Amino acid sequence: MRAVDLIRKKRDSGEHSREEIGFLISGYTRGEIPDYQMAAWLMAAWIRGLNRSELASLTESMLYSGEVLDLSRIPGKKVDKHSTGGVGDKTSLILAPIVAAGGLTVPMISGRGLGHTGGTLDKLESIPGFNVNLSLEEFRNVLRDCGLGLIGQTAEIAPADKKIYALRDATSTVENIGLICASIMSKKLAEGIDALVLDVKTGSGAFMKREEDSIRLAELMVETGKRMGKKVVALITDMNQPLGRMAGHSNEVIECTEVLNGGGPADLRELSLELSAWMFFLGERTKSVDEGRVLAQSLIASGHAMERFRHCIRVQGGDDHFVEKPQLLPRARSRLDVLSSASGFISATNCEQFGIALATLGGGREKKEDTIDHAVGLEFHKRIGDRVEKREPLVTIHYNSGAKLAEAQRLIVASYEIGEVAPSERLPLIRRIIGA
Amino acid sequence: MRAVDLIRKKRDSGEHSREEIGFLISGYTRGEIPDYQMAAWLMAAWIRGLNRSELASLTESMLYSGEVLDLSRIPGKKVDKHSTGGVGDKTSLILAPIVAAGGLTVPMISGRGLGHTGGTLDKLESIPGFNVNLSLEEFRNVLRDCGLGLIGQTAEIAPADKKIYALRDATSTVENIGLICASIMSKKLAEGIDALVLDVKTGSGAFMKREEDSIRLAELMVETGKRMGKKVVALITDMNQPLGRMAGHSNEVIECTEVLNGGGPADLRELSLELSAWMFFLGERTKSVDEGRVLAQSLIASGHAMERFRHCIRVQGGDDHFVEKPQLLPRARSRLDVLSSASGFISATNCEQFGIALATLGGGREKKEDTIDHAVGLEFHKRIGDRVEKREPLVTIHYNSGAKLAEAQRLIVASYEIGEVAPSERLPLIRRIIGA
Repeated sequence: MRAVDLIRKKRDSGEHSREEIGFLISGYTRGEIPDYQMAAWLMAAWIRGLNRSELASLTESMLYSGEVLDLSRIPGKKVDKHSTGGVGDKTSLILAPIVAAGGLTVPMISGRGLGHTGGTLDKLESIPGFNVNLSLEEFRNVLRDCGLGLIGQTAEIAPADKKIYALRDATSTVENIGLICASIMSKKLAEGIDALVLDVKTGSGAFMKREEDSIRLAELMVETGKRMGKKVVALITDMNQPLGRMAGHSNEVIECTEVLNGGGPADLRELSLELSAWMFFLGERTKSVDEGRVLAQSLIASGHAMERFRHCIRVQGGDDHFVEKPQLLPRARSRLDVLSSASGFISATNCEQFGIALATLGGGREKKEDTIDHAVGLEFHKRIGDRVEKREPLVTIHYNSGAKLAEAQRLIVASYEIGEVAPSERLPLIRRIIGA
Repeated sequence: MRAVDLIRKKRDSGEHSREEIGFLISGYTRGEIPDYQMAAWLMAAWIRGLNRSELASLTESMLYSGEVLDLSRIPGKKVDKHSTGGVGDKTSLILAPIVAAGGLTVPMISGRGLGHTGGTLDKLESIPGFNVNLSLEEFRNVLRDCGLGLIGQTAEIAPADKKIYALRDATSTVENIGLICASIMSKKLAEGIDALVLDVKTGSGAFMKREEDSIRLAELMVETGKRMGKKVVALITDMNQPLGRMAGHSNEVIECTEVLNGGGPADLRELSLELSAWMFFLGERTKSVDEGRVLAQSLIASGHAMERFRHCIRVQGGDDHFVEKPQLLPRARSRLDVLSSASGFISATNCEQFGIALATLGGGREKKEDTIDHAVGLEFHKRIGDRVEKREPLVTIHYNSGAKLAEAQRLIVASYEIGEVAPSERLPLIRRIIGA
């Protein structure tokens, strides 16, 4: 078998066998197939597409390009959640302790933020001392102790994905639902889980702006996961505006503690409970999703979820006192209110631009190597449908450097559409469930 | 401007500006754009296509990626011929001395054989001492002295093409008429010529098997050349069987001397005269193609063409005595007749397979690095339409090693289609003229 022939085959819209995909992925991971051949193949696959069977082979090859976590010595079901990312999307820090407190194991391997989306690892690192760089052995010990663990991708887990993702980023072959699906599913299935709940965002702040694209990706991921013997369900959820009131790392961590304390913004609470409920159901902890929701609520009310959260933070080296004293987290030196230029009703937001504004302030990355300011943030005062008066604050910017403040401000102002009448309908937060 | 954005643009079927193409080609030539980005762009361009204006920009960028030969100090018109390649295609060695003897300058920069096709440089190197590796300064001196020069691509000429071609070869992005056109035309126009005659082969032994593809490529090359202010014409010529009786390097050189001596096979003579005639006409040496044909014939008859051929060989370091003593060229140790398995009429040949058989015997390359046996060859006794008796020789194999003889024999036998009746029509050697 030769890579050049497989490139030709895909270029000419041919269908790859399982062996052919395996040859490409293992050869590339071992460095036997050069970057330029993989780049040509990726472009051909991007344009010509991969069918369901090729996609399953690709996911499988990437999954087995490295170690698959062996959690067999930890009793009970292992479940995880993955989100396709958005602005203010911080449910992982809430649902992982809830589900662990409910008796399941949550081996969560997360990513960092890139572009306009935030990343769980970056949020966790705003907690003083918290270490996301555990070895797989340390990770297993944390899981056994806490029922949850929150780490970054290691070199052992799906190395093919790491290498291919970097190449896709440099060759404009990222936005393809087949390749996205294989990337996500190979990493998640390498966690050695029994069940997976997917949160596929849709709307102006999501990677997929159109609901039909989100649905297609969700269907593909659910099918791929099921082919590989896992229980998988996907929730299509709204990302036309930020989730919760806060965006920015330490601000989001604080908001998570509010939810775990029984408060917090309604949308964030609702989505965190819903995702937890599905995890309980797929993990066979409850007989229904409704029962799962009741269990999640009770674990918040009893304080067990918060307890588990603090325990995990301590075990991973963090200082959990910020729960009582938020000032222990990095805080921005200055604040600025962005005022509405008109009176009316918020009819829409260009949510992606909020993420870009946050990154502009130092709270995100353009390139992987960029460092992050965990203290900066955006505080949203209004939601779609809300009444706003002229010169009323829309957003409060928490910033450290004034250098790019004007640019961030401009981006935020331009992101709001204000109409004269209230929008006739509000889109539900949870649009639909795929694979149930 | 960023390469990643240009890759996305072509991926999404966008049209590049002249500046964008220039950015990609010059960046890649200088090593600022890595192989993997160019590979992704090439695949996108292969699949999505390049329009006429993009193609002109690509040819121009590749042409000016290196030096364009300045022949202004040599008086008169400079003309060249390029063939898309085939089996037994040896007209360059005949027409270059004819046209030079007629008073025009022929600065011929040629390639080596790859796959089933032969290359002019390899044929020349079967002549003891002949040096195809001249510097551009030496080349100019040879041209001033002889009116023709025959060398290989140098590092100064179209370096972008050299680099891109190697990448296309490894990424299955070769067979695309736009990319082929840019590759050929950039190299040829870098010779500093006024006019170019293209010999676009069609049929089973050609790169383009279907006449409509050959016509499309020819039209594209003619248009691209004309856009750049050159006189260009393309002849679509038959390659459903080898040109002449001989394939293999020293055997072909000998056949060329036969034509320059006024003999040789009819098809080779006809095509060489026709191409010479067009070169004379485009180079404004004659008022018509017919006049050009008469001139070419007279230059053979007078011995001036042969004289010029021998002079060029001597000036480029070769021993020209092989013209009288063919045994001075490398000769194969053994011969084997391939016999017909049936009686009847030759209705077709799979001509490409002859080239592969020759390569199998050592007379061709699979990879660029392979060395070549100049002595091996195939001598064809029958042409399409000829009557053949069972056990009559179809081909005589000239070989040195018996190792792959059986394989070559098998390929040759399988290449002949023998029918019970003579084919009703014979396809003309010269199918059509494009751009006249």
